[in-house]
Amino acid sequence: MPKLAYLGPEGTFAEEALRILAPDAERLPSANVSAALDAARRGEADGAVVPLENSLEGGIATTLDELAWGEPLLITAEVLLPVEFSLLARPGTEIGNIKRIFSHPAALTQCRGFVARELPDAVTIAAPSTAGAAQEVALPGSPYDAAIAARIAGEHYGLVELASGIGDRSDTVTRFVHVTRPAPLPEPTGADRTSLVVFLSDDHPGALLEMLTEFAVRGVNLTRIESRPTGDGIGRYFFHFDFEGHVADARVGEAISGLHRVCADVRFLGSYPRADRLSPQIKRGTADADFAEAAGWLARIRTGQV
Amino acid sequence: MPKLAYLGPEGTFAEEALRILAPDAERLPSANVSAALDAARRGEADGAVVPLENSLEGGIATTLDELAWGEPLLITAEVLLPVEFSLLARPGTEIGNIKRIFSHPAALTQCRGFVARELPDAVTIAAPSTAGAAQEVALPGSPYDAAIAARIAGEHYGLVELASGIGDRSDTVTRFVHVTRPAPLPEPTGADRTSLVVFLSDDHPGALLEMLTEFAVRGVNLTRIESRPTGDGIGRYFFHFDFEGHVADARVGEAISGLHRVCADVRFLGSYPRADRLSPQIKRGTADADFAEAAGWLARIRTGQV
Amino acid sequence: MPKLAYLGPEGTFAEEALRILAPDAERLPSANVSAALDAARRGEADGAVVPLENSLEGGIATTLDELAWGEPLLITAEVLLPVEFSLLARPGTEIGNIKRIFSHPAALTQCRGFVARELPDAVTIAAPSTAGAAQEVALPGSPYDAAIAARIAGEHYGLVELASGIGDRSDTVTRFVHVTRPAPLPEPTGADRTSLVVFLSDDHPGALLEMLTEFAVRGVNLTRIESRPTGDGIGRYFFHFDFEGHVADARVGEAISGLHRVCADVRFLGSYPRADRLSPQIKRGTADADFAEAAGWLARIRTGQV
Amino acid sequence: MPKLAYLGPEGTFAEEALRILAPDAERLPSANVSAALDAARRGEADGAVVPLENSLEGGIATTLDELAWGEPLLITAEVLLPVEFSLLARPGTEIGNIKRIFSHPAALTQCRGFVARELPDAVTIAAPSTAGAAQEVALPGSPYDAAIAARIAGEHYGLVELASGIGDRSDTVTRFVHVTRPAPLPEPTGADRTSLVVFLSDDHPGALLEMLTEFAVRGVNLTRIESRPTGDGIGRYFFHFDFEGHVADARVGEAISGLHRVCADVRFLGSYPRADRLSPQIKRGTADADFAEAAGWLARIRTGQV
Repeated sequence: MPKLAYLGPEGTFAEEALRILAPDAERLPSANVSAALDAARRGEADGAVVPLENSLEGGIATTLDELAWGEPLLITAEVLLPVEFSLLARPGTEIGNIKRIFSHPAALTQCRGFVARELPDAVTIAAPSTAGAAQEVALPGSPYDAAIAARIAGEHYGLVELASGIGDRSDTVTRFVHVTRPAPLPEPTGADRTSLVVFLSDDHPGALLEMLTEFAVRGVNLTRIESRPTGDGIGRYFFHFDFEGHVADARVGEAISGLHRVCADVRFLGSYPRADRLSPQIKRGTADADFAEAAGWLARIRTGQV
Repeated sequence: MPKLAYLGPEGTFAEEALRILAPDAERLPSANVSAALDAARRGEADGAVVPLENSLEGGIATTLDELAWGEPLLITAEVLLPVEFSLLARPGTEIGNIKRIFSHPAALTQCRGFVARELPDAVTIAAPSTAGAAQEVALPGSPYDAAIAARIAGEHYGLVELASGIGDRSDTVTRFVHVTRPAPLPEPTGADRTSLVVFLSDDHPGALLEMLTEFAVRGVNLTRIESRPTGDGIGRYFFHFDFEGHVADARVGEAISGLHRVCADVRFLGSYPRADRLSPQIKRGTADADFAEAAGWLARIRTGQV
Repeated sequence: MPKLAYLGPEGTFAEEALRILAPDAERLPSANVSAALDAARRGEADGAVVPLENSLEGGIATTLDELAWGEPLLITAEVLLPVEFSLLARPGTEIGNIKRIFSHPAALTQCRGFVARELPDAVTIAAPSTAGAAQEVALPGSPYDAAIAARIAGEHYGLVELASGIGDRSDTVTRFVHVTRPAPLPEPTGADRTSLVVFLSDDHPGALLEMLTEFAVRGVNLTRIESRPTGDGIGRYFFHFDFEGHVADARVGEAISGLHRVCADVRFLGSYPRADRLSPQIKRGTADADFAEAAGWLARIRTGQV
Repeated sequence: MPKLAYLGPEGTFAEEALRILAPDAERLPSANVSAALDAARRGEADGAVVPLENSLEGGIATTLDELAWGEPLLITAEVLLPVEFSLLARPGTEIGNIKRIFSHPAALTQCRGFVARELPDAVTIAAPSTAGAAQEVALPGSPYDAAIAARIAGEHYGLVELASGIGDRSDTVTRFVHVTRPAPLPEPTGADRTSLVVFLSDDHPGALLEMLTEFAVRGVNLTRIESRPTGDGIGRYFFHFDFEGHVADARVGEAISGLHRVCADVRFLGSYPRADRLSPQIKRGTADADFAEAAGWLARIRTGQV
């Protein structure tokens, strides 16, 4: 039975994601994303489940930077988890008496409309995680009156759900990924995604255009691009790319080999089945069979057989 | 004397930025970035000073999203502020007794090395701002032992600086911008930057490549690109662009008109002097004089004068 | 009644083209393409009708080079003329006795199959024009036994048609253009073509790609590209382009202004109705209305109205 | 001793080219370019030397079309031959008496200035080759008074050189190629050229841009591009490309494999040493070593070693 680290404490969305990705796994709650990834790196866990991006908040900076700069890990699976927020309080609390709301800043942002409308006099205080906020609120004598978190967190810590579905948007989704230490990759399924980090050799105008052209020429469709600062001053970025296909696909292999040749560094983050099971539209001439046929043709003409 | 809103309370980096950008302005501290921008929008202030990106943390999501989705504002100036963190505590506190450190999550991340090395047993707690953390720590009976914030915050709230320059990197910089309600733009200086938000018509493969080509063909160099989720589900993004030049420049005007024609929406965020005073390298054939000469040529051939 | 020069003598395909383009014009036969164009330039004629390209032979080098280097002329109309060849001889000649065939080299090439099959022992001799060959063959005592030319030439010079439709392909077409001295352009019809000559600033790798991108970015579709040597040594070329649209169209104007800015020289050769009346597929965002709307938007944001 | 066919009769520029390319070869004069190539195809000769392009006239259509459509042949060498024209006549002819000048149309075009200036009353008549014109002029009772051809042709046929260097430009060059039946290719020399013919799948706007991008992305520099009609009507073209490098080079192999995948057909015409011995500028990341290193990297990440 594998053991997987995740952003704890119990009751987080990460725990929900983990239960979907690996229902039978032993769960190891960690204090934060870095700790969960370190547990996987050091072998205290067989892997970790961490958030990569949120449809409202964007990329999760800590995860993106850990995957780019930390000791290498491989993404082996993903899940898209609908995010539903509840207002949770100790039994006996009345909604009209809530003055101090505790939650993760992303959750506070996503529930801004509800708070402004229903609790206009309350102040919001930032917590390290939504489940952590629930845990804290559950303590007798907590300075906070309510938490915003997943319903599961309320159940876990014995809180009452005063309101549910309080996010400003009902369709918010967080994408979680399952990462492991380097190991053989998941087999191609025909509906895969590959993730990559690219560092530019220099930051000349047009460098990003050149990178995108390496993908376009081989018919590889990007699904996400995110720039992150390298830390070397304003204006210096590296890039996270997600794109359709598996590194075992010829077109993907050639495209990222091209990036590897012309960029300062490319870090492969894994090829894994897409959670949405969407198969890519293969552009004419870019299927594996096309590459194989072209390789045969090239071998022939190189020996003068035309 | 103009009045400018900023992320308060007194002692934040935003206040430092404001003092540089507008030394004589009256200062209106706000609870958060959104509140500062709203003060400018509603006319309670003449403008606001807010962080846009940090060389370590990347784009400031709230600012980016407010500028993209909120009532329109224009960037009229920018400043690059070196970020130096100090460990601040109430007089009499000994460093060995610090168990609970309060600060903004970005500051906690940037000082992770120092904390792990010097205060391995301390826990860190997220605060809404670095200055707010200092303010809180200064209260008698505060549950927190120390704050990580700018030195200026310590001075302001009567805290002692136990350590300075405690960031993991000594060269971290935050870029702050001065925004106002729509108004005549700053004059071109020859070393300007323009900011833009672009929403795609549809998310077809190659859409980003097409956008970048609109810039490249007119010789306009990008200095920042940042994707942000539209909120409509994983995989749907819009883009923030910063690039060299002023919207009054012919090449910039033609490039962004091209984007406006082919994209669902383009929001202009302003043209303003670059803080680093770097003049752009003008590609052959893209100076204003080249555009003017070409316009004259086109007018002639359209009347059959060849 | 306008007077038009053409590649004579009477009976050439050029005469046929002229009769279609300008049925009522007075016709001035010229010795060759250059002479016809010079007649138009010097005012001896009001214009000229010359071949520009042939579906089998390609661009007509003399015409292309005259339009590129000679005193400027404007194309005002085009016609696509099916080319049908006949074997023509003096009355009384038997096909079995034909030993020497006279015609323009292009015609000889296009009838190679017929000659090899039906007249394997005959030799072919190059003539300056197909009609000129017919004229020569018609002379008593001509050293040539037969001409390959248009049927009309045979009728004109009193020759007998021994075989018709003898071209190797039945669908050969020559494109003729009507040129005049610089004058107001034909009005846009919605199905127009524009012709251009472009000289590169330098011959760096990628220069052609850059030119094509100027067209592609504005959604202007090329219909013909032809490289021609500049005369300055092997490897130095200039380019003829034909593309969809009229120079009065905003997208065409911007595209060729872009070329004008970045290339050493651009010579406009005219905008005129397409012979095939095909309307272009207008790419999203590139109609005149789109350009006008974008210009209005740009004017507004330049004054700070966002 | 190899036997090579060439455009005869003796005294042509093609013979000069052949003597440079293969001084010891037996020479087989042919009536025209097609005949010379057919002699090579049928084994009557071991190869052929034919003109491919001229710095003044452009591509030699017959050669280009024969290489594209005829039974496959491979280019194994090239030579750049300066073209100098002389005015040649029978002994005793005075220049003032020359009324009829016989030569190949290309030569007549290239000497147009001299003829207009020095022999304004003479007419020019098209011959199948310059040396053939000299041969004809040498016949007693020839209807022609003079030929324009290479000096060598005059020497060969006993003509007197009345004027030399009579071309309008002194620097005209013709590029001749040595072709053979398919056979092992010449070894790479580090300063090679590769020739190719490409047929488009369909003629959509942007197809040419896509082809050029296949080259550009792999850092392969084009040295010649020529469109030729497919014969299927005006507006249908195929393309001849010459570019730097040898098909054995990794970047060349990947680029033309890409073309092969996305185009209807690609015909390889050979890789051979450049006559000018110019080595290519290798773009960063496109040397063979870069491709090999990238292949190793790809193999590793495909097994999950990151």
